[in-house]
Amino acid sequence: MTKRIIDTCFSPALYEPELHAGSIVIVIDILRASSAICTAFANGARAIIPVAGADEAKEYKEKGYLVAAERDGFVLDFADFGNSPFNFTPDRVEGKTIVYSTTNGTGIINLASSAYMIAVGSFLNIGALLRWITDQDKDVMLFCAGWKNRFNLEDTIYAGAVAYRLMESGLYSTRCDSTLAAIDLWSIASRDLRGYIEKVAQRTRLKDKKLDDCIDFCLTNDFTDKIPVMKDGFLVCLT
Amino acid sequence: MTKRIIDTCFSPALYEPELHAGSIVIVIDILRASSAICTAFANGARAIIPVAGADEAKEYKEKGYLVAAERDGFVLDFADFGNSPFNFTPDRVEGKTIVYSTTNGTGIINLASSAYMIAVGSFLNIGALLRWITDQDKDVMLFCAGWKNRFNLEDTIYAGAVAYRLMESGLYSTRCDSTLAAIDLWSIASRDLRGYIEKVAQRTRLKDKKLDDCIDFCLTNDFTDKIPVMKDGFLVCLT
Repeated sequence: MTKRIIDTCFSPALYEPELHAGSIVIVIDILRASSAICTAFANGARAIIPVAGADEAKEYKEKGYLVAAERDGFVLDFADFGNSPFNFTPDRVEGKTIVYSTTNGTGIINLASSAYMIAVGSFLNIGALLRWITDQDKDVMLFCAGWKNRFNLEDTIYAGAVAYRLMESGLYSTRCDSTLAAIDLWSIASRDLRGYIEKVAQRTRLKDKKLDDCIDFCLTNDFTDKIPVMKDGFLVCLT
Repeated sequence: MTKRIIDTCFSPALYEPELHAGSIVIVIDILRASSAICTAFANGARAIIPVAGADEAKEYKEKGYLVAAERDGFVLDFADFGNSPFNFTPDRVEGKTIVYSTTNGTGIINLASSAYMIAVGSFLNIGALLRWITDQDKDVMLFCAGWKNRFNLEDTIYAGAVAYRLMESGLYSTRCDSTLAAIDLWSIASRDLRGYIEKVAQRTRLKDKKLDDCIDFCLTNDFTDKIPVMKDGFLVCLT
């Protein structure tokens, strides 16, 4: 049996869309967009409209949408709330369609739009996501949002966690150095994930802005079995 | 005392020249450009002219220069020889100025041209390079050539080896996730460097073309104390 291929991309600046037209792209922005999106669906959101630009988000607000929008961790003045998963409470999001714009996360969803399918991955839905990926029998691209086009560790170790478990299934292979590096970094980080995250740059950025209260939550496995996927311009829930 | 900063860049596509105007940039292309350049100087080359384009290399050939040029591991038809360090023998290079163009390595030298200083790093000169860097009292950018803009492991683990030893000196710090990742990958790779390199993509590419005979040599520490640096458009030897 031919094994399916795992690729990993560390930054939007390194993404090669033409190579992944047949792949499932897993969008990863652990601190905090992909964790927040998974939380929104766990708490009953109906759909999310990801937009890259702040202006576009503002136009949606003027049309009456609920808007979550931030830049560099700060809520934009016109938005209803920002990027912490703790904002996406059931009383705010249940049954709602939310417009969502962040520094790094939503941009890569647009970049990957030519892929076979786009799903959002976080530790919060990792178990369900892995079962679903394996059922699809497709090549997989683990797309790390990074930070302003730079490599980041938290997205990479998550990619490593997913790649490690897919490789362990025996159904996947890789010859991509990024995937091999992610798996090795995960082998170190997984010994003490919370301790490892202490050193990453985004952890320091969030702490400086007193936005680091959600980090423990963002590292929680299997808070939900919801799998957000892109469909006709909306993020909706598979299950 | 304020510590000097170490940054690491995994790909030409991620390089931000404006951030490194005051830094020493270490150009890294372990398999095989930076190893070959160090070998050329160890064997008595007088200077190397790095050129990015094959056309430019051809023009130099027509002017009578000795030209080393390859693309994807294959010697270009007009060139005297290709990219293996084993080509740069004393009888060929002693006292000569060589024009050098490769798939990935020479391009990043040009990208880094606005930096305070550019030096070429490989395992072959790692000890001398570390002593020299520490004497300069400057911030350091470890610039990995990668492969066609992609992340690669062999350049990253070398960056990790350099960063690890600079951090150990107590004179440097980093808050760059790429540097932290490189150090962690080096901590794994250094247990069995030759074994680790077996899995990297470039090793497979070289093997497929029967160009992998130089890998053991490229992983040799301290073959030379020569430090190639850029000066007025030429790579010349510091010592």
